[in-house]
Amino acid sequence: MTTELQKEREQIKFNPKEVNYFLEGSKERSEIVSNIVEQMEKDPVLKVDASYYNLTKEEQREVTAKKIDRISRYFENEFPDQQAQRLSIIGVFDPQVFTRIGVNLGLFVSCIRGNGTNSQFFYWTINKGVDKLRGIYGCFGMTELAHGSNVQGIETTATFDKETDEFVINTPHIGATKWWIGGAAHSATHCTVYARLKVNGKDYGVKTFVVPLRDSNHDLMPGVTVGDIGAKMGRDGIDNGWIQFSNVRIPRFNMLQKYAKVSREGEVTMPPSEQLSYSALIGGRVTMMMDSYRMTSRFITIALRYAITRRQFKSKISGDKETQLIDYPLHQKRLFPFLAAAYLFSQGALYLEQTMNETNERLDDAVAEGDKNEIDKAIVASKKLFVASGCLKSTCTWLTADAIDQARQACGGHGYSSYNGFGKAYSDWVVQCSWEGDNNILAINVAKPMVKEILQEPEQKGLVIANVSDLNDPAKLDKAFEHALSGLARDIGAVAKDKGYDVTGPSLVLVSKLNAHKFLIDGFFKRITPEFGPVLKPLGFLYADWIIETFSSVFLSYGVIAPEVIKKISSEHFPALAKQIRPNVVGLTDAFNLSDMLTNAAIGRADGNVYDHYFETVKSLNPPENTKAPYSQALQDMLNRPSVEERQRGEKSEEAAEILSS
Amino acid sequence: MTTELQKEREQIKFNPKEVNYFLEGSKERSEIVSNIVEQMEKDPVLKVDASYYNLTKEEQREVTAKKIDRISRYFENEFPDQQAQRLSIIGVFDPQVFTRIGVNLGLFVSCIRGNGTNSQFFYWTINKGVDKLRGIYGCFGMTELAHGSNVQGIETTATFDKETDEFVINTPHIGATKWWIGGAAHSATHCTVYARLKVNGKDYGVKTFVVPLRDSNHDLMPGVTVGDIGAKMGRDGIDNGWIQFSNVRIPRFNMLQKYAKVSREGEVTMPPSEQLSYSALIGGRVTMMMDSYRMTSRFITIALRYAITRRQFKSKISGDKETQLIDYPLHQKRLFPFLAAAYLFSQGALYLEQTMNETNERLDDAVAEGDKNEIDKAIVASKKLFVASGCLKSTCTWLTADAIDQARQACGGHGYSSYNGFGKAYSDWVVQCSWEGDNNILAINVAKPMVKEILQEPEQKGLVIANVSDLNDPAKLDKAFEHALSGLARDIGAVAKDKGYDVTGPSLVLVSKLNAHKFLIDGFFKRITPEFGPVLKPLGFLYADWIIETFSSVFLSYGVIAPEVIKKISSEHFPALAKQIRPNVVGLTDAFNLSDMLTNAAIGRADGNVYDHYFETVKSLNPPENTKAPYSQALQDMLNRPSVEERQRGEKSEEAAEILSS
Repeated sequence: MTTELQKEREQIKFNPKEVNYFLEGSKERSEIVSNIVEQMEKDPVLKVDASYYNLTKEEQREVTAKKIDRISRYFENEFPDQQAQRLSIIGVFDPQVFTRIGVNLGLFVSCIRGNGTNSQFFYWTINKGVDKLRGIYGCFGMTELAHGSNVQGIETTATFDKETDEFVINTPHIGATKWWIGGAAHSATHCTVYARLKVNGKDYGVKTFVVPLRDSNHDLMPGVTVGDIGAKMGRDGIDNGWIQFSNVRIPRFNMLQKYAKVSREGEVTMPPSEQLSYSALIGGRVTMMMDSYRMTSRFITIALRYAITRRQFKSKISGDKETQLIDYPLHQKRLFPFLAAAYLFSQGALYLEQTMNETNERLDDAVAEGDKNEIDKAIVASKKLFVASGCLKSTCTWLTADAIDQARQACGGHGYSSYNGFGKAYSDWVVQCSWEGDNNILAINVAKPMVKEILQEPEQKGLVIANVSDLNDPAKLDKAFEHALSGLARDIGAVAKDKGYDVTGPSLVLVSKLNAHKFLIDGFFKRITPEFGPVLKPLGFLYADWIIETFSSVFLSYGVIAPEVIKKISSEHFPALAKQIRPNVVGLTDAFNLSDMLTNAAIGRADGNVYDHYFETVKSLNPPENTKAPYSQALQDMLNRPSVEERQRGEKSEEAAEILSS
Repeated sequence: MTTELQKEREQIKFNPKEVNYFLEGSKERSEIVSNIVEQMEKDPVLKVDASYYNLTKEEQREVTAKKIDRISRYFENEFPDQQAQRLSIIGVFDPQVFTRIGVNLGLFVSCIRGNGTNSQFFYWTINKGVDKLRGIYGCFGMTELAHGSNVQGIETTATFDKETDEFVINTPHIGATKWWIGGAAHSATHCTVYARLKVNGKDYGVKTFVVPLRDSNHDLMPGVTVGDIGAKMGRDGIDNGWIQFSNVRIPRFNMLQKYAKVSREGEVTMPPSEQLSYSALIGGRVTMMMDSYRMTSRFITIALRYAITRRQFKSKISGDKETQLIDYPLHQKRLFPFLAAAYLFSQGALYLEQTMNETNERLDDAVAEGDKNEIDKAIVASKKLFVASGCLKSTCTWLTADAIDQARQACGGHGYSSYNGFGKAYSDWVVQCSWEGDNNILAINVAKPMVKEILQEPEQKGLVIANVSDLNDPAKLDKAFEHALSGLARDIGAVAKDKGYDVTGPSLVLVSKLNAHKFLIDGFFKRITPEFGPVLKPLGFLYADWIIETFSSVFLSYGVIAPEVIKKISSEHFPALAKQIRPNVVGLTDAFNLSDMLTNAAIGRADGNVYDHYFETVKSLNPPENTKAPYSQALQDMLNRPSVEERQRGEKSEEAAEILSS
């Protein structure tokens, strides 16, 4: 029997494979990804299926460790780009594996690269074999129980002991306990510890130190106390831990000293500016953008495939048969924006990645040549990237959480089954909105410099979107965002002048979001080559409609868009775009090139045999042969218990009352 | 040491206990609730603590069953109102217990009450002891694998066999498998099955039948196949199951026949109208409104207490010390609306409950007296309640999901620890948005009759909120919603005339939401008595600000509010209200009267000793004495493995190359 999905697949008017090249950045990259996926689908340790969703916390911890062991063997034969692609793909179907490796290769290594000298970098990472997951395993000791986003408030101390030429690392009180440290509870042998440098009684602020936690026998070092953070909302496969240091001594040269240095005599040299270290944070954000693309694509694919297969209620739309969910305008309104979002996220991630690489190269060259002028220019470029990546990280990780949640709701009750993946994915995902810069605080931090910059430019104002047809003009859309941002910045600036920026927090978050969307929309249209125009442009316009509607109070308040256009977005423009997109849905989701292992959801299977796969999954994981629960006796005893009068031994009966009262 | 929270508690200018009477509806109700809470806190089976968050699915299943067993003993000595309050409270700290009982007492019993004769009701529920959780345990067999919201599309069949005077219950294909049936997998002995009545080859549509699933020995009846649905996003303590019937025979009188009847001869009598059964669904919605209140109050309390305790970053707001999170305007913007929401939800729930009781009584009286005219009037009142409760169920369950999520995010990383409760609560909660009417479909279904009704009234239009001061006038606020709804209804009507209502889905959802908010805001102001005015009114206005901002595109599009007022909401009006509310926060959250067991979150403890409790919880559940993971050897073997060259037995060496090539 041909399923609805297969029927629609036969009607695709474009080549989804070529669209995948657009999404992955190139034909070469697309093929690398396909090969890696195939390899992992066949690997008995790495592959997943629905049983993945049945694992307990303890099982997840163990399985995750074993997967990392397995990945280490692939890494021994791979180049960094392949390794990165492999991790990016693992991030779709088993994100906790990615993260548990990421604390080592992403955070620990990046911290040393960003803050250590070249020699320190080679000693701690390359020579030891960290890049092949061998020798030592690092974790990243920044956050403390009482201090997260405010790194400068960290309270762990690193006091220089001139006599022994060592630093003494100490946790002064409970609040300074290192907290949430991924990999610390069970895996890590070393930690890059953020601590206040103290020399001769003077506090030089927060610096970074490499502190061994466990010896090569994996026993804790003296003075190091480590505990397991325990159960989490998601990602239970990661052994997050807490660490306390009781006068732990490390050699002076374990301080990472690319910038700040302490000499044998205790003289402290501080860098003229620490802005260079900006770039260390951007890699993580690029990764999170790419994650946002992959995770949104996974769940929107599941929901859209289900929506094609599922019929419910007869309606005027389909005539006599029950209507496919996907043909309801409300369903299109709920899901199509996230389909578009996946496309825009991919383009945003690729652009960020490319810009980061260029900026880093430029900076490295300038530093190598000692060209002060070029260094300054590169720092400006780096700061711009820092701002853009901050807006994008916060905006897109939030939207991806929405995507998973909306996709789940669009699958009704079946979205609530663990075996369709939404629950675990959501719980796993949302930490992306809190870590590496809580989204709200990050948004504020990047919006402040943005506002200051906008204020230095002439005011941009006036009606841009006067008619519905203006919504089809990418240049006007970009202008509309510019005007809205210009207006917002002026209002923020006026308040901030007297009261400081902190009171303008809610508006700053708006600035960050609008800037991210501006970036995504503008970049998307610029990257579409003519052959993809008919298929991809409607996605860009639909996304813009959605954002303008969402932030209509801003666009209307600053008079950027006419109120009647806002009304017509929902009544005319959006529905018309949805109509264009509707026949392409199967092709646009197939273009993500997600195998059934990657989606790992019975109701999202590529063949569209929704109910058969789903029922089989449920039966195989919960054999109906077990007709009674292990605890059935408790239920039977409850139901078959004697009456309350009998169990009270008749002590409340009239008979008893008579005897007892006489 | 006095915590920040205790310091602020000493400054409270009103009596939180009296505010609790407002929230619970009366002093009496408030005291009943307090007594029940105290009882359960001391009950060794029912009480919870942080270890609750460490339970596996299998443990949750078993513990939940044992709790139900325990509750059955309380029920034997309680009146229905006490039972309801007890369940409502259990719903806060252990919602899966509530639901697993609810499928029996809520759904099974209500279905029989709504569709069966009085004799059937007494036979199946009272006589058997169901109301005391004794004798039999019921489940509710409506949903099928391929049919959820569209009850009329259900495909299970109940065919009358005149020869034996029985119905034959059958599952014709996989899609008609009863699915998601709470209690079916392990607990239920009986099921109210929704099936198509077939007599003499004619299909009479969907009716309800009591079908035994298990005998008194808890063994499955012949022809009944039951399986476990398995792992879910949340509420794993409930044994949701699937059921297939293979020619299962039940006596004719197991059909619930308050309305439709089949005689011994196979004559079918159908009711003139089945509208009477409307009322059966409303009870569940009232419960979900009350749940929304209790769950929102729980998590907003945790987040606000944490926000008072936690300081982060120095700012102009606090001067030299780090600033309390709660003093950041962004934090107030994120959390205060949900504090207000809890207050408005409580009032909404109480109002719905009261109206439901009155309407039901009125209907019962009219039916008893056979007063056709009164019956019709009562049905109209019942329909109104059906609409109002539908708008509220969907709007408030959605907002509660947002509340839990926002509260979690506001606690940063610590919100992600299982031990602070957000993760499980969110996963447990969100099914409320899908069950008993998927929120989107429910919203559409109730909005349609609303729109038709609005269209019969004269158009209401024109600017209502012209100045910021108008936002302080409850009558104007109500008017503003009325105008917005009137405008929306007209636009919907115009489209629906040609194309049907289905294409107006997104606007219908808006109508439902706006109507719910109108109801909540209007009702709240009407219920505030003068003594509570200064404390409670700012909450109502702040809530209204929030809603108007959220739906500003509607209010602006229909010219109900001036654009400059929208801008001033965020820059002036909201911040001013937040300033009034700020000193009352501890009092307003204490007024929820939530004990530490009910919040069950270390960072939300009433004494404000956040970090001590949190650290103790983590350590007691994950003893740091276990310094190595059970699977540590795998990690050690990975890190200490020989080099890749060695493990490849030198087969890729130059030496090997030379030998092999010569």
